[in-house]
Amino acid sequence: MTRIAIIGAGPSGLAQLRAFDSAARKGEEIPEIVCFEKQEDWGGIWNYTWRTGLDEYGEPVHGSMYRYLWSNGPKEALEFADYSFEEHFGRPIPSYPPRAVLWDYIVGRVSKANLRRHIRFSTPVREVTYADGKFTVTVCDLANDHTYCEVFDYVVVASGHFSVPNVPYFPGLEKFPGRILHSHDFRDAAEFAGKRVLCVGSSYSSEDIGIQCYKYGASEVIFSYRTSPMGFELPDAFSELPLLLKVEGKLASFKDGTQREIDAIILCTGYQHHFPFLPDDLRLKTKNRLWPLGLYKGVVWEQNPQLLYLGMQDQYYTFNMFDAQAWYARDVIMGKTPIPSLEEMQADSQSWREKEEASDGASYDIDYQCAYIRDLLTLTDYPDFKHEIMAEQFKEWKHHKEENVLSYRDHAFPSVITGNTAPIHHTPWMEALDDSLEAFLKNK
Amino acid sequence: MTRIAIIGAGPSGLAQLRAFDSAARKGEEIPEIVCFEKQEDWGGIWNYTWRTGLDEYGEPVHGSMYRYLWSNGPKEALEFADYSFEEHFGRPIPSYPPRAVLWDYIVGRVSKANLRRHIRFSTPVREVTYADGKFTVTVCDLANDHTYCEVFDYVVVASGHFSVPNVPYFPGLEKFPGRILHSHDFRDAAEFAGKRVLCVGSSYSSEDIGIQCYKYGASEVIFSYRTSPMGFELPDAFSELPLLLKVEGKLASFKDGTQREIDAIILCTGYQHHFPFLPDDLRLKTKNRLWPLGLYKGVVWEQNPQLLYLGMQDQYYTFNMFDAQAWYARDVIMGKTPIPSLEEMQADSQSWREKEEASDGASYDIDYQCAYIRDLLTLTDYPDFKHEIMAEQFKEWKHHKEENVLSYRDHAFPSVITGNTAPIHHTPWMEALDDSLEAFLKNK
Repeated sequence: MTRIAIIGAGPSGLAQLRAFDSAARKGEEIPEIVCFEKQEDWGGIWNYTWRTGLDEYGEPVHGSMYRYLWSNGPKEALEFADYSFEEHFGRPIPSYPPRAVLWDYIVGRVSKANLRRHIRFSTPVREVTYADGKFTVTVCDLANDHTYCEVFDYVVVASGHFSVPNVPYFPGLEKFPGRILHSHDFRDAAEFAGKRVLCVGSSYSSEDIGIQCYKYGASEVIFSYRTSPMGFELPDAFSELPLLLKVEGKLASFKDGTQREIDAIILCTGYQHHFPFLPDDLRLKTKNRLWPLGLYKGVVWEQNPQLLYLGMQDQYYTFNMFDAQAWYARDVIMGKTPIPSLEEMQADSQSWREKEEASDGASYDIDYQCAYIRDLLTLTDYPDFKHEIMAEQFKEWKHHKEENVLSYRDHAFPSVITGNTAPIHHTPWMEALDDSLEAFLKNK
Repeated sequence: MTRIAIIGAGPSGLAQLRAFDSAARKGEEIPEIVCFEKQEDWGGIWNYTWRTGLDEYGEPVHGSMYRYLWSNGPKEALEFADYSFEEHFGRPIPSYPPRAVLWDYIVGRVSKANLRRHIRFSTPVREVTYADGKFTVTVCDLANDHTYCEVFDYVVVASGHFSVPNVPYFPGLEKFPGRILHSHDFRDAAEFAGKRVLCVGSSYSSEDIGIQCYKYGASEVIFSYRTSPMGFELPDAFSELPLLLKVEGKLASFKDGTQREIDAIILCTGYQHHFPFLPDDLRLKTKNRLWPLGLYKGVVWEQNPQLLYLGMQDQYYTFNMFDAQAWYARDVIMGKTPIPSLEEMQADSQSWREKEEASDGASYDIDYQCAYIRDLLTLTDYPDFKHEIMAEQFKEWKHHKEENVLSYRDHAFPSVITGNTAPIHHTPWMEALDDSLEAFLKNK
């Protein structure tokens, strides 16, 4: 029987399990599936941990989530086509849920479908090799400190790319008398109450963590950008400065000559695609972008179509895009969708790359990823989820942020799946300090 | 030609390079040696990094060293028999040097001997397998993102066991509104100035980190012990309490019913022996103790004597013990010392284990490790270094600590290698806030 290894039980890996389950429920015969998950529970980065650095088994901590993290995009734009928020929670809920609510939603779908049985938890993949048409996957069963190998016909890499930090050096960091951390290790904004915090970076992590720190009492937040400022209108406690050049004691110097005293440095400098378990010829090498090369339809490893990758793109669309990819991957594996020649695959990828490079900004990028999903949907039977309407929601969300980045989460969107509009949350986001599922769902 | 892989270029791995070099200098033909080091420089944990968690390549940070770390034992008890501190620094120096001085000393010996040429830096070992009398070692050249394999006749595991933290859970950690870290990630005590710090653990890390925090301005330091308190006489800012039971908000509860408000939690809870690159049948499984089983003479993997381990014991003796082990390992590899049958090796190890288990305290343990070194020295030609006198120095050091754990570093010891007694340092340790090599070596 054909055997499939899925590496990772986060949103992408769980989408792959769901995709096969969907075929099985239609009476199709599906392959044997083993999903290897390094964490002790599912949900990928949505599975919060207080741990940082290395975990209880000495393995790198996967999670980059922090307390008080709320969705930074409307949930209507990430809704599963085959499992609405309303189906999961039994009623409409507001558009910007905290982490615990999204985790509950992601795992709820696969839990109800009884898919946990496919997953071997606390089992990181150590090595994947390919020979004679088969993959040998070496894993470690951490709980029993037992390393073993199994053989598979296909491997689906769904290990994510927001768990291994990109950590640059700046002169003087080695003598800075305060905490230095990457956003990957950020856990609790309360630690920075009363402090002057420098957030290096000008993308989503920096924006959200800087605002969290302010929300929970930081006295000052400085954003440092390499290319261009975020440009939001923010209270006086915030400032935006160009690139950090060096620190001397607590004094930070920036490219425009400005100097500021700071107490803590948070490097919000992004993540690496990191696959220490893959050999050179199977390993995707890319930075975070909309079209990494080497993956046909963003999914199939062109040099060896028995290897597939999910969710490796920079993302506007998330959960439902992973679904579309996983449904397509399933059809490739089950032979329902033919794969063209290497040359044709590369030509197709190259044309996507060229379109990616013609981008003139966020609006273009949203439409680009929308078109990519449209392409995937023509190839598989994942339900159409009106992703064009979602593209307009993304643009509206961008606009809300420009209006007020502290209150954009107070807006509500209609679900393209159910047609219902979300209720307004009982508490404005800046005043909502309790991020628990219970507090979010209760009627105030 | 026989090929040797050494995993790690810290004190143990460098001792192994030095051991072969010593034979080569006597005109013996030595095998081809490749040392794989995951860090970009040598010195193992003595190579300080400001980084925590994962490094610039996404690999676990090896270093557990923090700023302001000074040797916590007299340097005379760790001196190399073949390279004195006086030879390295050109004059006698005080007995308790800061980290940078010890790093300089360790790498000075191998630097002068031109041994850096054997080392491939930024090259972690991914996997070791054994078949048909040979090892295949898979490594990653991080700078070039290139994974490759080479074949060896012997592998020496010198990767240390103070770099992968043991991190227990206590109820409430997931909601503690402040920083939680393991001592592995502790870097700068200044971060905790004005804070109430809880150090969980009652061994060397806890003692030293708690005292560092006090030295650099922490308002309160609580030590929490599982078995027994350290029992030092300390200023009123310190207290010792039994095991932490839980935290609720900032309130910590201990086993005796005491409750205390705290601002930060440092888990000084020790380290794991962690070899993710080794399969089950080659992997040492042990906690930190004086006699791990499975290693003949504490070095030779009994089940496969082509595999050797250095420095895997709990340690009073350090650098010179690693030397004695490395010289012995060299002789085993070069066939100068016969290895007995598996049964004889196991019987020998078992008798050491029984003696270890008869321990009645630190003094016994010091004499035990002294006897172990005596045994090694009978098997190889590492210069006798009067390790029995060092044993008495360890006991005196223990006594100094009991007298005053804040000032024991102000004592001076005679070198058994040169016969000269160390000078008293120009500044009492509690007042010495600059831990640089320059500040330490200058005449005040």
